[in-house]
Amino acid sequence: MISVSEAEALIAEHMPARGSERVALARAAGRILRQPVRAETDLPPFDRVTMDGIAIRCSDPLPEHFTVAGEQMAGMAPGAAAPKDAGDCIVVATGAVLPVGCDSVIPVERTRREGDQVRLEPGYRPERGQFVHARGSDCVAGQEVLQPGVRLGPAQMAQLASHGYGQVEVAATPSIAFVGTGDELLAPEAPLREGSIRRSNDTAVAAALSLHGFDDLEVRHVADDPAAAGDLLGQLLDTRDVLILSGGVSMGQRDFVPGVLESLGVRCIFHRIAQRPGKPMWFGTGPRRQAVFALPGNPVSSLVCAVRYVRPALLEAQGMRPAPVVHACLKQPLTPHPQLARFVPVRLDHGLDGRSLAEPVPTNTSGDFTAIAHTDGFVQLAPGSTEVPAGSSLPLYGW
Amino acid sequence: MISVSEAEALIAEHMPARGSERVALARAAGRILRQPVRAETDLPPFDRVTMDGIAIRCSDPLPEHFTVAGEQMAGMAPGAAAPKDAGDCIVVATGAVLPVGCDSVIPVERTRREGDQVRLEPGYRPERGQFVHARGSDCVAGQEVLQPGVRLGPAQMAQLASHGYGQVEVAATPSIAFVGTGDELLAPEAPLREGSIRRSNDTAVAAALSLHGFDDLEVRHVADDPAAAGDLLGQLLDTRDVLILSGGVSMGQRDFVPGVLESLGVRCIFHRIAQRPGKPMWFGTGPRRQAVFALPGNPVSSLVCAVRYVRPALLEAQGMRPAPVVHACLKQPLTPHPQLARFVPVRLDHGLDGRSLAEPVPTNTSGDFTAIAHTDGFVQLAPGSTEVPAGSSLPLYGW
Repeated sequence: MISVSEAEALIAEHMPARGSERVALARAAGRILRQPVRAETDLPPFDRVTMDGIAIRCSDPLPEHFTVAGEQMAGMAPGAAAPKDAGDCIVVATGAVLPVGCDSVIPVERTRREGDQVRLEPGYRPERGQFVHARGSDCVAGQEVLQPGVRLGPAQMAQLASHGYGQVEVAATPSIAFVGTGDELLAPEAPLREGSIRRSNDTAVAAALSLHGFDDLEVRHVADDPAAAGDLLGQLLDTRDVLILSGGVSMGQRDFVPGVLESLGVRCIFHRIAQRPGKPMWFGTGPRRQAVFALPGNPVSSLVCAVRYVRPALLEAQGMRPAPVVHACLKQPLTPHPQLARFVPVRLDHGLDGRSLAEPVPTNTSGDFTAIAHTDGFVQLAPGSTEVPAGSSLPLYGW
Repeated sequence: MISVSEAEALIAEHMPARGSERVALARAAGRILRQPVRAETDLPPFDRVTMDGIAIRCSDPLPEHFTVAGEQMAGMAPGAAAPKDAGDCIVVATGAVLPVGCDSVIPVERTRREGDQVRLEPGYRPERGQFVHARGSDCVAGQEVLQPGVRLGPAQMAQLASHGYGQVEVAATPSIAFVGTGDELLAPEAPLREGSIRRSNDTAVAAALSLHGFDDLEVRHVADDPAAAGDLLGQLLDTRDVLILSGGVSMGQRDFVPGVLESLGVRCIFHRIAQRPGKPMWFGTGPRRQAVFALPGNPVSSLVCAVRYVRPALLEAQGMRPAPVVHACLKQPLTPHPQLARFVPVRLDHGLDGRSLAEPVPTNTSGDFTAIAHTDGFVQLAPGSTEVPAGSSLPLYGW
């Protein structure tokens, strides 16, 4: 049995890096950037007016009044208007190029205009350079403004748009298949049958992935029949980059999944991690370097393993810079297991002092997902022999 | 001018509540639940075996060995096999119904089988009831397991599947149009032109919404021409539930947006909020109770207002239970504005003690989005006259 961090390292070592693809900017939100983004021009590309009003050249003393010598509106090419002497001003709008020969802007609220004469509010003293957003003060042409590996949120999308990236290189999305096993498992829409329960791991794992952008996901189910499972898995290994299985990886007689996978040429990288829940997890790589995650079939185990291992590995294979691990403070003490890492579902509160507070929510068994519907994620508790007191902080993983 | 909390309250008061729709479970991830979800059966629906092994009836002393009297595998109807006397055991698999007459399960690893005889590991003492997940111990038939208003993440999706919800009632998604204004603004793919900059507010606001599930979003742009804008806005008011505009809401001569909206029968609920950036924000409701948000045109202002007001209002109108406000601790002091709330972009760090630490990232002006591409959100600083020291915690809003 290996440790949680050994499992993470082995998965990272064996995940094939995903390629990239070019997509239209409008389709890039949420994707992982795979190219450096450089400023196309200085930003702003010119000394940019930031208030509606008049542009002047500051002098001491200022003229008593100014004469309007033209207009420079937003979008007009530079030089649409320029002052001819120190008593001239140019009417300007937010976003306009600062007229040549001017250095400051006086907001319209501080002025009174009569015909082509503009008077300042009595006693108003402008500062030289005011309400001018200087050329290149945000960034200069050629500067790297985004590095590969970021997830494209609103602020990054704005950068791409403003630097003229109508298309952008992002990580390709893997083609994933999820295969549930288990004769006792009925589909949500099937009639109930005594001795059976409904399957939910497919729905839960698909949601955990699709909500993070992994939407090329085929969901299948096979009975506990090695031959039928072998046929299906063989087909999926031919067509998919990633296989995620659930169930059939423990030590019982129905636990045929590792054997079937190995017979299809999938090499076992590890089987069993020193953790609870999720100890029986199996990971291997196929002949074309397909990543194959075989998760335990119990609902909590399956979801915990998907969130703790599968999702981060898929994101890392896309070139995403690893997200920092968030910690949360325990509201109640927790007892570690002597040999196994524990993953304990928690409900989060947010303290007014900026702390995340984790209330452990005991599950009845690793088959109990009623309790976890009211949790936000789980904390990871290292193996140990002494109680971890309330107030301690532990790594937190959100569902 | 009204305060931030007055603006929030006015928007909430005037947002029409969204209806709901029934969708297939596979399409429900990320949506807002709009019905109570009740347990279809007890869960587990039977005393459920949680380990592969043998089922027995506990007695003291235990028989020296057991005789296999049948098998109860997962998915088999109850009563597939039952012990005839105290020395009988039934071979069972994880997920099976506990055979009638048995009360405990002994894991296969603790047994040695020869023919139909099974011996326990020497000295092994089972506890009565062990490895049995008792019927109804997770929930009982009819129990409300999910309440309306939750966002359907993986754990909630698992609940729906396991209780037989092949379809589910979720909030309808509003039909949204975003309209940018500004003659100086070029599309990302347009050739550069002197005196112009590229537009990015549409891209940023669309990402801020689509990444939270608002994907029925039409993006348009109009020049600073009240007649053309009036035509377009009139059409969009006929076809869309929500309009979001950017630009043209300040006090300048090009700031025609409020006038055009009012001429189309959109009633102004407020104009200007005591905040920086984003002071000129305008909000109104149309003749069919369409919500109309007119945001300032500067990129930082526009995105801040979308995240602080528009997105939460859209979620609340869908019936989502308000998310608790998260706080973050300042790494550096901040100076409040005497009259205006300040929204200050921050980069987040996560302390090992469970605290979120916010590093303020100064922006050059409210037109400066180069800096915000490297931030995670913003903190809200109330108006005031004394410096807020490092270590203070403030409400945090993620992009």
